[in-house]
Amino acid sequence: MRERSDGAMRPLVLTPGYNKYAEGSCLIKMGDTHVICTATVENKVPVWLKGKGQGWITAEYGMLPRATSLRTEREAVRGNQSGRTLEISRLVGRSLRAVVDMKKLGEITVKIDCDVIQADGGTRTASITGGFVAMYLALAAAKKQAAVMDTVAAVSAGIVGGRAVLDLDYAEDSAAGTDANFVMTGGGGMVEIQATAENAVFTDEQFAQMLALAKEGAALLAMAQKEVLGI
Amino acid sequence: MRERSDGAMRPLVLTPGYNKYAEGSCLIKMGDTHVICTATVENKVPVWLKGKGQGWITAEYGMLPRATSLRTEREAVRGNQSGRTLEISRLVGRSLRAVVDMKKLGEITVKIDCDVIQADGGTRTASITGGFVAMYLALAAAKKQAAVMDTVAAVSAGIVGGRAVLDLDYAEDSAAGTDANFVMTGGGGMVEIQATAENAVFTDEQFAQMLALAKEGAALLAMAQKEVLGI
Amino acid sequence: MRERSDGAMRPLVLTPGYNKYAEGSCLIKMGDTHVICTATVENKVPVWLKGKGQGWITAEYGMLPRATSLRTEREAVRGNQSGRTLEISRLVGRSLRAVVDMKKLGEITVKIDCDVIQADGGTRTASITGGFVAMYLALAAAKKQAAVMDTVAAVSAGIVGGRAVLDLDYAEDSAAGTDANFVMTGGGGMVEIQATAENAVFTDEQFAQMLALAKEGAALLAMAQKEVLGI
Amino acid sequence: MRERSDGAMRPLVLTPGYNKYAEGSCLIKMGDTHVICTATVENKVPVWLKGKGQGWITAEYGMLPRATSLRTEREAVRGNQSGRTLEISRLVGRSLRAVVDMKKLGEITVKIDCDVIQADGGTRTASITGGFVAMYLALAAAKKQAAVMDTVAAVSAGIVGGRAVLDLDYAEDSAAGTDANFVMTGGGGMVEIQATAENAVFTDEQFAQMLALAKEGAALLAMAQKEVLGI
Amino acid sequence: MRERSDGAMRPLVLTPGYNKYAEGSCLIKMGDTHVICTATVENKVPVWLKGKGQGWITAEYGMLPRATSLRTEREAVRGNQSGRTLEISRLVGRSLRAVVDMKKLGEITVKIDCDVIQADGGTRTASITGGFVAMYLALAAAKKQAAVMDTVAAVSAGIVGGRAVLDLDYAEDSAAGTDANFVMTGGGGMVEIQATAENAVFTDEQFAQMLALAKEGAALLAMAQKEVLGI
Amino acid sequence: MRERSDGAMRPLVLTPGYNKYAEGSCLIKMGDTHVICTATVENKVPVWLKGKGQGWITAEYGMLPRATSLRTEREAVRGNQSGRTLEISRLVGRSLRAVVDMKKLGEITVKIDCDVIQADGGTRTASITGGFVAMYLALAAAKKQAAVMDTVAAVSAGIVGGRAVLDLDYAEDSAAGTDANFVMTGGGGMVEIQATAENAVFTDEQFAQMLALAKEGAALLAMAQKEVLGI
Repeated sequence: MRERSDGAMRPLVLTPGYNKYAEGSCLIKMGDTHVICTATVENKVPVWLKGKGQGWITAEYGMLPRATSLRTEREAVRGNQSGRTLEISRLVGRSLRAVVDMKKLGEITVKIDCDVIQADGGTRTASITGGFVAMYLALAAAKKQAAVMDTVAAVSAGIVGGRAVLDLDYAEDSAAGTDANFVMTGGGGMVEIQATAENAVFTDEQFAQMLALAKEGAALLAMAQKEVLGI
Repeated sequence: MRERSDGAMRPLVLTPGYNKYAEGSCLIKMGDTHVICTATVENKVPVWLKGKGQGWITAEYGMLPRATSLRTEREAVRGNQSGRTLEISRLVGRSLRAVVDMKKLGEITVKIDCDVIQADGGTRTASITGGFVAMYLALAAAKKQAAVMDTVAAVSAGIVGGRAVLDLDYAEDSAAGTDANFVMTGGGGMVEIQATAENAVFTDEQFAQMLALAKEGAALLAMAQKEVLGI
Repeated sequence: MRERSDGAMRPLVLTPGYNKYAEGSCLIKMGDTHVICTATVENKVPVWLKGKGQGWITAEYGMLPRATSLRTEREAVRGNQSGRTLEISRLVGRSLRAVVDMKKLGEITVKIDCDVIQADGGTRTASITGGFVAMYLALAAAKKQAAVMDTVAAVSAGIVGGRAVLDLDYAEDSAAGTDANFVMTGGGGMVEIQATAENAVFTDEQFAQMLALAKEGAALLAMAQKEVLGI
Repeated sequence: MRERSDGAMRPLVLTPGYNKYAEGSCLIKMGDTHVICTATVENKVPVWLKGKGQGWITAEYGMLPRATSLRTEREAVRGNQSGRTLEISRLVGRSLRAVVDMKKLGEITVKIDCDVIQADGGTRTASITGGFVAMYLALAAAKKQAAVMDTVAAVSAGIVGGRAVLDLDYAEDSAAGTDANFVMTGGGGMVEIQATAENAVFTDEQFAQMLALAKEGAALLAMAQKEVLGI
Repeated sequence: MRERSDGAMRPLVLTPGYNKYAEGSCLIKMGDTHVICTATVENKVPVWLKGKGQGWITAEYGMLPRATSLRTEREAVRGNQSGRTLEISRLVGRSLRAVVDMKKLGEITVKIDCDVIQADGGTRTASITGGFVAMYLALAAAKKQAAVMDTVAAVSAGIVGGRAVLDLDYAEDSAAGTDANFVMTGGGGMVEIQATAENAVFTDEQFAQMLALAKEGAALLAMAQKEVLGI
Repeated sequence: MRERSDGAMRPLVLTPGYNKYAEGSCLIKMGDTHVICTATVENKVPVWLKGKGQGWITAEYGMLPRATSLRTEREAVRGNQSGRTLEISRLVGRSLRAVVDMKKLGEITVKIDCDVIQADGGTRTASITGGFVAMYLALAAAKKQAAVMDTVAAVSAGIVGGRAVLDLDYAEDSAAGTDANFVMTGGGGMVEIQATAENAVFTDEQFAQMLALAKEGAALLAMAQKEVLGI
């Protein structure tokens, strides 16, 4: 089923400035996974940060109903966000905060919206990678890019049919015994690792193989981010 | 401010098949207003229609947070859909039902999702015009296009600075004394008229001028729909 | 089925001062449609109007569970207001704002509550007509009646059995191919027109017939409003 | 402040058949407290009673926003019913169930809606007294009145200025050190007693005085119920 | 079924200081009914009390899902608190306020949380009795115990098999024709009485028997409270 | 601050059968972190599993308001579960499913409730460790223990002051630059790894140190589980 080699990622297209209104924006395509990322700068901080002279980064994630093969009920109709949605929103915000110096931001909040318009696996990692581009553009527009300490990007890996492979699409994700997401900085530091066994446990060695693939993938994503941002 | 003539519409681009998964889909651009429309076919009907041998068409409308100049709070976060959202969803569904013979559909439901990714006035009329294309494609895929009796499209008109103009963008809409939406079939029948005075009343004559412009606009929209659908 | 002539309205009874507590109130009966309208004056304005030296008018609509032939679930039990409820609330507020000079109000808010205790068609138009009386009384009590520029009232019309008729009751509304609501001022200005085809489209001529009937009806409603208010 | 004697109730008016649609209905006025009670008969029972050959009685209570001196926020807007509303709904349902033989009902549900259109103290007791009339009429219409074992009515009493008084209006209720509600059958049996001290405790003797007044009041209410029902 | 005498309560265990963080806490066991009560002191008052120089006491009640024989759905999952939960929360708060001088508190709020970890009847009365201990400890820690005017405790009684019995467990409660809760102060004053007939009415005499048992029970509870508090 | 050695866990106490009603239950204490775990067996499966001949394991997590140093608002009051709560619920369910053969369960659902009554760091790992004991007991009572393939337990590790330490309490967790949770089986297989940098990135070596400590900790937890379960 997989035509790429085990360590190859799907084609990546970053379209910065996709949205006319947002202070920063980026459409990211990782194969058939398409996510619109926008960054909004607000001149205020959450209540618990007021007067501390520092800023905040937060994120919200969503999916259009037909982003998926079967239609997913609209969360606004259901009346709340699912656990999965909230979990991904928290992950994206945490990942982006890891590369920004909150003190250098001053008292502003940057809100990253990641809306999946088509989903084929890896929507959370694409949201982090594209969200960074949108955030950087918004901070540059606000002349705050000095607060950004490094780039950050994310990629998935998994054990499929006993072999470690990089950047799973939906079919591979469904078939994987173990599925892991890695968030890493351009400088190679690790920000977040989430590895989960499905119907099976995994071993140290399998984990090490996934980690090795992820490092290579994250390095390529960092290069692409730097190129479109000209940094 | 307006560079177009009073009776001119903004550039229209219809991109059918924009979404990989939906039974029918269309990205519609009316100037800077961009709406993704998808149509989902389900082999069931609402409870109150069961066993009556007929189908149903319904619609849901949404906006991404940065579709607008200032960020709008996500309805899924707020916990419910606004009155405006529900009102537009109902209008889109009603408009599309007007051109479909429910008996010929058989017991299926077609759900049209209209998600605004960028808003510059006229999102509800674009949703109807683009939603029709998505719906037609989905019905054609299900070999049910015979149930479609006519095309349907919608356009706005208003009184701006005392003159009737067609297809208002956001700046014009904000400046308009009266704002109206017209939903019409390809055959020229009227499906829905909504005319609203803002800070002023309007006269019979002004209404007649808006109606005349709308008829011309709707005819052009019908032509474009037929062209992309090859009907 | 219809015993009245095509252009006749149902018997109208306006009972001002129906409620002991409200600053203004009116029970309106249009045939078997009964709506309690109350107006509350608050010495504050919405956040987005603060410090602008102007006031605001807003409305909320509701129905008792057995206002209808079959019991309708209580919206407070279901946990939210339906799209229909919100749509009517917005229409009533917009209609009443059209005849009030917000600058002359000063920084107050008038909230109109329209609660249907029995529904036989035309509850939204009755809410506007009765709501105006409640609002006027509340503004007069607050010595702000000078802010009221004109009366406003609403009436429905429709195409039933191919003929245009005025002021549809529930049975007529169900049978109508087209149903329209007209909101007009005492001076004859148009505030809002909403015309909707059900299972059929309508023509220019049919629209003109409905509009003609509505003008006559609205003029009679304005006379009744002025009489009970002594203006 | 009180012009009535300590043991006198306010004027009572019961208007059966107030609503055109409901199977049973009654407008009850106890002084300035006005409640519309309607009874709906449904040919089904709650899930947990299915197939047990018995029926169910339940109630819902609500208040219009301007039933009160200051406007109360609409519960449908707030998104849920308050603890007070739910508590009263439960009390009304429990009280009415106490006089109906569920086995004789057969598998039907009677739902009593009590909507306060004006509140001047004692809305929960008026809801029980008026709700019984509505329920009886609905059961009679369904030829199920044989399931009604007795009448039931409710009245409040309290300790105001050290003296026990019957049927408190809002001003008295606010001034009362102790406030109690008594639900009793026509035959003199006690169904529910709720006595609550506010800013003070009460004694055995005070309780006995309130109970004695309540018995007299309940007997008068039962007479009025029987008269309007002709039983 | 009942091994205790009619007037005997189940074994009572009060464990003050059960929680490491709360300003005051108490685990109360009445037989197999176990409730964790914690008291939180906040240096603020509700909006409507600001600047009045007095404090406030409020309570919240909850049950763990398996506090009951069959699992009860988590209220946080369902999205709201049930009528029963709100009713008990209000009762506990009202009962505790009856023995505290709000003026002597100063502008603080004490919030009592009563969480049932195992339920075998009488959870609301145990919440009041244990809640008092937690509240007293919190006030003592804040050097505000002088605001406490008396102890308060609660106990149930009922008519089971025609005989009045004290402190019903779940099985007895289910079998009881009448069920009553009594809230009383250490000094013997009555704070709240709630008596409810289930499938039957009750008489004056039966009520008097329940009241007599409850007085004895409440006196014992007051003794136990004073002992663990050393007052 | 830390009196234990870097690789030492806090004192563990497992109390199986803590709850009288649940099919399986366990109170787990890891130092000052106390969690009540109960397991409920239901003879049904989620809709999407019906008729597939297999079972399901799911979990819900909650915290009492004063489990924490500052009072946390009750989720049932707020009206929904937080992202953190849902994330932990999903983690616990996923972890327990990893050691159960769904096919051997047959069509039953086991629901694990983990309620934190006192929180001092590591509540999610304690929920998994204690939840396994409750689940095993419930399955044993249902004679389904053969479906359990292995034990599962969880422990945290972190980088505090540059050194890797095991089983962080709240103070350590707040001070940690990196915080990780490891879920492992008794047989040493890895089920889930979640490592998160806070205000810093982490390196391969640091990750390896945390993993090594976690393996030792998880082995001790597995021994304790087996001992109380007698397996």
